[in-house]
Amino acid sequence: MQYHFADRIARAPASFLEELFRVSSDPTIISFAGGLPSSALIDTEGIARATREVMEEEPQVALQYTTTDGYLPLREFIADRYRHRLGVPATADEIQIVNGSQQCLDLFAKLFLNTGDHVGMERPGYLGAIEAFSLYEPVIDTVPLEEDGPDLNAFERLVKKTQVKFFYGIPNSQNPSGRTYSQEKRKAIAEILESSGTVFYEDDAFGELFFDAQPRLPVKRRVPDQAVISGSFSKTVAPGMRIGWMYAPSGILAKFNVVKQAADLHSNFLCQKILHRYLTTHDLDANIRKIVAAYGRKCRLMCELFDDLMPQLTHTRPEGGMFLMATLPAGLSSRRVFDEGVKNKVAVLPGLPFYVDGGGTDTLRLNFSSASDEQIAEGMQRLARVIASLR
Amino acid sequence: MQYHFADRIARAPASFLEELFRVSSDPTIISFAGGLPSSALIDTEGIARATREVMEEEPQVALQYTTTDGYLPLREFIADRYRHRLGVPATADEIQIVNGSQQCLDLFAKLFLNTGDHVGMERPGYLGAIEAFSLYEPVIDTVPLEEDGPDLNAFERLVKKTQVKFFYGIPNSQNPSGRTYSQEKRKAIAEILESSGTVFYEDDAFGELFFDAQPRLPVKRRVPDQAVISGSFSKTVAPGMRIGWMYAPSGILAKFNVVKQAADLHSNFLCQKILHRYLTTHDLDANIRKIVAAYGRKCRLMCELFDDLMPQLTHTRPEGGMFLMATLPAGLSSRRVFDEGVKNKVAVLPGLPFYVDGGGTDTLRLNFSSASDEQIAEGMQRLARVIASLR
Repeated sequence: MQYHFADRIARAPASFLEELFRVSSDPTIISFAGGLPSSALIDTEGIARATREVMEEEPQVALQYTTTDGYLPLREFIADRYRHRLGVPATADEIQIVNGSQQCLDLFAKLFLNTGDHVGMERPGYLGAIEAFSLYEPVIDTVPLEEDGPDLNAFERLVKKTQVKFFYGIPNSQNPSGRTYSQEKRKAIAEILESSGTVFYEDDAFGELFFDAQPRLPVKRRVPDQAVISGSFSKTVAPGMRIGWMYAPSGILAKFNVVKQAADLHSNFLCQKILHRYLTTHDLDANIRKIVAAYGRKCRLMCELFDDLMPQLTHTRPEGGMFLMATLPAGLSSRRVFDEGVKNKVAVLPGLPFYVDGGGTDTLRLNFSSASDEQIAEGMQRLARVIASLR
Repeated sequence: MQYHFADRIARAPASFLEELFRVSSDPTIISFAGGLPSSALIDTEGIARATREVMEEEPQVALQYTTTDGYLPLREFIADRYRHRLGVPATADEIQIVNGSQQCLDLFAKLFLNTGDHVGMERPGYLGAIEAFSLYEPVIDTVPLEEDGPDLNAFERLVKKTQVKFFYGIPNSQNPSGRTYSQEKRKAIAEILESSGTVFYEDDAFGELFFDAQPRLPVKRRVPDQAVISGSFSKTVAPGMRIGWMYAPSGILAKFNVVKQAADLHSNFLCQKILHRYLTTHDLDANIRKIVAAYGRKCRLMCELFDDLMPQLTHTRPEGGMFLMATLPAGLSSRRVFDEGVKNKVAVLPGLPFYVDGGGTDTLRLNFSSASDEQIAEGMQRLARVIASLR
C-alpha cells in the first residue's frame, strides 16, 4: 500500500544520529562519532539508592499519572540552582520538565514556527535541532560561528532584517564545534536582541561541564523576557532517564505547557522522583567535578595527539563540553575519512549534517567524553594512519 | 514582550485534562471526572523488585542513551503478546516504543497531516486525540458512534468521498463513551477501508480491560497494511513510567521512527528495562484479572446506582475499560451539573470537549476505575442530589 505522508516528512534530513549509534555499537571500532557521556562516570550506586528509597516510600505516587508541568520539588531544585549558580532569578513557575532537552527543540519549534517562517541558528549548528526544526518546514538561516561566538554583523542582519522568530544557539561548548561565546559577544547579542522581536533560545546542555568548573553567564540574564534556556540532566547525572527542562518566561511557558500536554501528557514521573531524590541526597557538584576533570583530561589528550600526529589538520580547543571540531587539509573529504576510518576501526563524524547549506565537507566532529584514555590514544593513531593514507 | 506564536497555537482547545487533574486533587471532592487507573491495583512490590534487579545487574546500560526504536526484548514481548493473544502476526520490527500512547497521537498526526488535511474520528471522540491532532491544523470530520460502533454509512461516505488521511477510533471500551465495536462492524469497516486510501488508527488503551477477560479481534487483523494499533502499559502495569507503543506496518514505522527521534531521541530507557524485567518475571495476566474484576464490579455498581437514583438519565453499559457516558434529561446542561457538582463535592466531566462541533452539552463522562466502591456509592448519591436540585 502507498502511504500519503505529510509534506514535512520529505523535508526530514536522513536520520544520521541513529545511523551513528548503530556504527558505534560495533565493539571493535573505537568511536569518536557518537555523543554519549561516559558510562563509567554515572553514579550508579547513588542512583540505585535513590531508586530504592522512592520505591520503598511512595511507589503508588511515583507510578501514577501526574501533571504536565512536572514534579514541583524537582522544578524548585532547578530554579534554585539557576539562582545560586548563575544569579538568574528563576522560579519553579518558569520551569517545565521534558524528555531530555531534545524535546524542547521539538516543542519550541511547534510553538513558534509556521511553515515558511524564518528561524536562525549557528553555522555549523546542532544536528538534533536541524532535525527537529525541519519538520515544521521553516526557512533555516545561519550565522557563522566564530571562535568567540556568532558573527555579530550577520547576527544583527538576521535579527533585524529577516526577523527570525527565534535564534537557536549553544553558547557553552557548542555541539559540534566545542566553541564558547565570549562575555563581550553575549552582551552584544543581548543589545541587538532588545531592539527586535526575536526570542533567543539558549541550549545549555553543557554549561555545567566547563573544565575550570566556572560558570559562564547566560544571555537570558540580560534579556529575561526575550530568552529561554533548555537544560538537561543527561550530561550531569544520566541520559537514560530522559529528564530535561525548559526555563522560559511565563508568557511562553503557559503555551509550551499546552503543546507538551498534547505531545505526551507528562514526562515519566518515576524518573522525576528518582532524580529529585538523588539530587537532594547526593552532592551533584562533587559528581560534576569528577566528570569535568575526566573530560578536561580527555580533551587535552585528544588535542595534543592531533597536534602531534596530524599537524596538517586544524582543530578547536574547547573549554568544556564533549566535542571538538577538526578541519581537514584542502582537498580531503570528511566522507572519505569516515568510510576509510570505519574500515580501519575508528569512527569520526563528518561535519556535513551540521551545515544546512551543504557546506562543511572538510570538517569532522569528534567526541571525547565516551572513549577511555587508552581508546583515545589508540583511536587517534588509527585516524592519523587513515589520513596519511588518503593524502 | 509580545510573543509571535505559530498559528496552530490559536487552534489548541483549552487544556481541559490539566484543569481536571487540578480539580481532582482536592481530597474532599469525590471525582469521577479524571481518568486515572486505580493506584491500589498497581503492583508496587513487583515493580520494586524488577527495579532493584535492573539497578543491581546493569545500571550503566539502563542509565545510558539507547536507540530510538526502543528496547528490543520489550518490543519482542509486545509482538509475542499480539501473536498469542489476538492471532495477529506482529514482529518486533513493527513495534516502536513511545511515551505512553498519547505520544502516538502527536507523532502519527505529525507524520500524516498537512494543514487543511482531513482526519476522521468518532463522535464523541477522545479529547487527548482532539488536542494532539488540532495542533497540526487539520479538518476533523466525525462519524456518529452508535452502541455497536461507528455509523457505517457515515463512515463509508467519509472514507470514500472526503478521503480522510486516517480514521482514528477506539474500538474497545471507547473513551469517553465506554462503547465497544461489534465484530460485524469491525468486519464491515475493514471491507470499506480496502477500497480506500485511508489508514485506520486503532487506539487500544483498553483492549486488555474487558470485564470478561476475553479478547476482541482488532480491525488490523483483516487489513494489516492499512491499520496501526497504539498500546500502552499505563492501564495494565503503571502510568507513571510513560511507556506505550505504536504497532504499524514497516512502511509507516520507518517514518514514524524519524519523527520520534526528532521529538525526543528515545523514550526513557530505565523504565523500558524495569518494565521488561517486570513483565518477564511476573504474571501480567494474573495482574490484569485482578484489575478487570475490580473495574467490572465498580462499573456495575455505578450503573446500578444510576438506574436506582437517577432513572431520568440514560447511560452506556460498558463491557470494559474505565469510563461510561450518561445523557442528561432534556434542558439540563452538563456544565451546570459540573459547577454544582464541584460545590457539592462530586466531580463529573461535561461531555462538551469530546465533541469538536460544540455538541454533547447534555452528556457527562464518568470514570469508575479510580474511586473506591465506598466513594462511588457516596459520590453517586451526591450527584443524584445535585441533579434533583437542578430540575
